[in-house]
Amino acid sequence: MVMMLMKATAIANSNIALVKYWGKRNSDLMLPHNSSVSMTLDNLNTMTTVEFSENFSEYELKINGKTAKGEELKRVATHLDLLQDSSPQKRFAKIMSESNFPKKAGLASSASGFAALTLAGTKALGQNLTLKELSILSRRGSGSASRSILGGFVEWIKGSLLDGSDSHAIQIEEEGHWPELSMIVTIISTEEKKVSSRAGMSQTVKTSPFYDAWLDTIESDVEKMKQAITKKNFTLLGKIAENNALKMHATMHTTIPPILYWESGSLSIMKEVLKLREEGTECYFTMDAGPQVKILCQQKDLETIKSRVTELDLVKDIIICHPGGEARLIEDHLF
Amino acid sequence: MVMMLMKATAIANSNIALVKYWGKRNSDLMLPHNSSVSMTLDNLNTMTTVEFSENFSEYELKINGKTAKGEELKRVATHLDLLQDSSPQKRFAKIMSESNFPKKAGLASSASGFAALTLAGTKALGQNLTLKELSILSRRGSGSASRSILGGFVEWIKGSLLDGSDSHAIQIEEEGHWPELSMIVTIISTEEKKVSSRAGMSQTVKTSPFYDAWLDTIESDVEKMKQAITKKNFTLLGKIAENNALKMHATMHTTIPPILYWESGSLSIMKEVLKLREEGTECYFTMDAGPQVKILCQQKDLETIKSRVTELDLVKDIIICHPGGEARLIEDHLF
Repeated sequence: MVMMLMKATAIANSNIALVKYWGKRNSDLMLPHNSSVSMTLDNLNTMTTVEFSENFSEYELKINGKTAKGEELKRVATHLDLLQDSSPQKRFAKIMSESNFPKKAGLASSASGFAALTLAGTKALGQNLTLKELSILSRRGSGSASRSILGGFVEWIKGSLLDGSDSHAIQIEEEGHWPELSMIVTIISTEEKKVSSRAGMSQTVKTSPFYDAWLDTIESDVEKMKQAITKKNFTLLGKIAENNALKMHATMHTTIPPILYWESGSLSIMKEVLKLREEGTECYFTMDAGPQVKILCQQKDLETIKSRVTELDLVKDIIICHPGGEARLIEDHLF
Repeated sequence: MVMMLMKATAIANSNIALVKYWGKRNSDLMLPHNSSVSMTLDNLNTMTTVEFSENFSEYELKINGKTAKGEELKRVATHLDLLQDSSPQKRFAKIMSESNFPKKAGLASSASGFAALTLAGTKALGQNLTLKELSILSRRGSGSASRSILGGFVEWIKGSLLDGSDSHAIQIEEEGHWPELSMIVTIISTEEKKVSSRAGMSQTVKTSPFYDAWLDTIESDVEKMKQAITKKNFTLLGKIAENNALKMHATMHTTIPPILYWESGSLSIMKEVLKLREEGTECYFTMDAGPQVKILCQQKDLETIKSRVTELDLVKDIIICHPGGEARLIEDHLF
């Protein structure tokens, strides 16, 4: 009898949405209310190993060396069950996942995490999927993970079909297209956020009086953002990204009860960005469901901005990112 | 020949909008896009003396002991010209104005200022106007001043007539109706704001994609707020006020370029209010066009909240307010 080792390791980058995703039209299938645009980030990533075996009697998950239980384990288990939907026999697996940045702090750990999990999981199961198929499956684990399958600049097309088969990411430009575009991630707090993105967006869709108006602005933002990326128009990219982030946070703030992901340190950095811009150093901020402020700038201004932000003395860490590549297999144990 | 001394002194309280005013449909006549509701505040006030004389050849303005020029002087001069529209002869005046709180820092100094100026100015001119007439005239100086003419709880009815003759404040309940209702004004910064309310609201109306959605929520907020006041329902009042303030700031944040009146200290206090509420001490925040956070609470919780906010060590000063009375004459030199 030949033993087949059903094991694979994949690495996926996180991504920063330049036009944000906030709110689902179908929460079972993770179908969004709006399309979004992102940049895949070279320096924030998750490496995940999945090993299936007939001998395992339950899923075992380790995240950054620690055994994960409860909701986290359940989400991963549900996802690996989904990957086996077409398998004749269901197997359990051991999963090891390592991110090089804090999780659940608004740095899209679930994006890189579920993209890596999907690639490693399907490969360990002997499946060879297209990028589109991987994007669709990743989406089921975490909406923004659909974008982390691809490298460079990415659009997640919201789609319109009920089964979600047209809701996936496509590449706008590849990673080498605009290497000067830089992002300074300021880590203000590594505490896990109180309100998860999942719970937060659901509550926003239900209660924010601005949610419809937010959606009304998306198509135009997506079009302008794609144009900015293709033409490497930094000013347009920055303006649309900053305004889009503020619009998303405005829908969060007007949710009942209010969702305030901003910390006092976040506001100080946002204001510093506005000040830098007034002084002639072009940069823009964006923020996601957490307190970290991400500063978009050009390579030439990276050091100036970095030192100004460091001087504020409220940043725990700084990570510099550039456009990154697609999710990939690291080691393939399938033989 | 009898010399007539055309001089009067009036005092008017500031007010805090519980349903905010942000945006004009007519900026010459200061007609708002929406109705608003406020509480007149007993402990934030402006005292103004106006003295007209045939012997004066220009307007002279002193604010808190300092001679004011430029835009400030022009606004006051224009207002005193307006009060003399029906006078046979135009006179200049000396004006002295004293507020017991910092001006232009989001504490509605123009509300108490123009209410006191209107009352003192008309009285000095020998006019005896009704509260409605005073409210309409005060509105021309500063929109929110229309509310500071009246005491207690006030609605500024937006009106619909082109000439603004139906856009004025009316009293919902008088000041003695709800003495337990308290407001803690936390002074975070006494710097004058960078973007005036006037410029800010004009820019918001032009560029915020959420402005129409904001207006759509007002009628319901006004109705619920009036009900909350009349029935002394603190929970309803607090919830509507906090959400309404967040909605207004959301329209500001999504203005292009963004208007961020919040300071990092503001956010810390807002979060402390949310925390206090989670812990069972009922309180709500509201904010205007400036960094100060105003905490709505009941008399019984005043000391608890005050000491918690003081512990944060970022508050420069604290002012406690309760419902206050209408604008009144202090000294009448007209003889």
